[in-house]
Amino acid sequence: MSHQKPLILISNDDGITAPGIQALIDVMKEIGEVIVVAPDKPQSAMGHAITINHPIRITEVHLYEGVIAYQCSGTPVDCVKIAIDKILPRKPDLMVSGINHGANSSINVIYSGTMSAAVEASIDGMKAIGFSLCDYAWDADFESIKPYIKTIALETLKNGMPYGTLLNVNIPVPADKNILGIKICRQAQAKWKEDFDRRQDPFGRDYFWMTGKFVNMDKGEDTDQWALENGYISIVPTMYDLTDHQRIGSLNQWNLNGTT
Amino acid sequence: MSHQKPLILISNDDGITAPGIQALIDVMKEIGEVIVVAPDKPQSAMGHAITINHPIRITEVHLYEGVIAYQCSGTPVDCVKIAIDKILPRKPDLMVSGINHGANSSINVIYSGTMSAAVEASIDGMKAIGFSLCDYAWDADFESIKPYIKTIALETLKNGMPYGTLLNVNIPVPADKNILGIKICRQAQAKWKEDFDRRQDPFGRDYFWMTGKFVNMDKGEDTDQWALENGYISIVPTMYDLTDHQRIGSLNQWNLNGTT
Repeated sequence: MSHQKPLILISNDDGITAPGIQALIDVMKEIGEVIVVAPDKPQSAMGHAITINHPIRITEVHLYEGVIAYQCSGTPVDCVKIAIDKILPRKPDLMVSGINHGANSSINVIYSGTMSAAVEASIDGMKAIGFSLCDYAWDADFESIKPYIKTIALETLKNGMPYGTLLNVNIPVPADKNILGIKICRQAQAKWKEDFDRRQDPFGRDYFWMTGKFVNMDKGEDTDQWALENGYISIVPTMYDLTDHQRIGSLNQWNLNGTT
Repeated sequence: MSHQKPLILISNDDGITAPGIQALIDVMKEIGEVIVVAPDKPQSAMGHAITINHPIRITEVHLYEGVIAYQCSGTPVDCVKIAIDKILPRKPDLMVSGINHGANSSINVIYSGTMSAAVEASIDGMKAIGFSLCDYAWDADFESIKPYIKTIALETLKNGMPYGTLLNVNIPVPADKNILGIKICRQAQAKWKEDFDRRQDPFGRDYFWMTGKFVNMDKGEDTDQWALENGYISIVPTMYDLTDHQRIGSLNQWNLNGTT
């Protein structure tokens, strides 16, 4: 880092007014110069959606002292993309997303707008971190986890990040667990078992609400789920190269080109 | 496989009326019993978005002879989830998504609703394939690529797929390239360079349309981009374990727990 303060881009998926992003802004203001570009409404579970069939809008808002902030009508990934193209004065030294109200561990990483914003920043070559607290409450306790957020951000600035990798950080609820420390983990193999709630509208027509039950099939003690259940903050180094490299060899044995 | 015909679930992101899904239905009807659950409108670039803040609806439609078909008001991933919970009589032997109007090679895999539908099926333990033709036209030539689709589907049924892996298949435009065969590839390292088009609405307020330029940073000849540019159909074995396993060791050297 130069003498210049680090430039830090912040986004999230719970919207620009969420307590989680306020806590993240508080911590990042202690570290560097902060620019916020975040959705103007909740955009949870948007995954890596982008807006290509509608226009999007950005509006500067004066919500946070000493912080340039824009709300954006698009998805979390849209926020990062338009920040890069229209708002940021230079490439940020760090991009942080969150603090998400609710866990983004295990398979949740692919549904999460918070993580997708960080993934998009990483695609663009930024050091990026998604932070989530395992508490869906709007008034969750973000205060007591701030020191961990700061440590992880400072270590990321100091150690750097290879192109193509970002961090998925999940934090147990401080009131539930005495936080024992930070563990580097792999993504647990888990899924949501679908359970749609069938209802009828006032006109007698069926509609469905998505619900589901989280099922962890993974007994490993090196997973993010294990860490969280045992009082640790989990960090999963995450990448968007989805290639199953180990599988390339065996697929080459298939009879795809009619030669056998 | 038993004597029973294979059960095949089909979805896409271009919507249930798209020519691409019609072509896919044609081919799958030759292989097995087909159930279609697809969006009632175009849902391109929805990534792995799911609908949690609104109800969704499904409606049976009689569009394709001999085929049970439902249109769904949700995203491509919603379609697969509600198919699993409310429509399918048993676990399908195969799930296919597409044929997408446009490429889903390289980094497009993470923006694509077509691929996310296949990923969701894979999470649920199905053998799954996403098919895309590198032609955005509504009247693209799907006819001459049908034999390749059939071969890949049959080989997948025959060889199986380990849990956690699916296939991302991209096909060059037959009129542009003499298709030379099928190559197993890795995802090319590429990105979209953002270029938002700034316009003014009738009230003098700015709005933006997302546009972008695809930038391939990857010179490798083992990538999907290379294959497509050289007349090959690309198959990338794809997974949703996003862990960067190689990075776990070096992250353990960081000073995260204040011990050094």
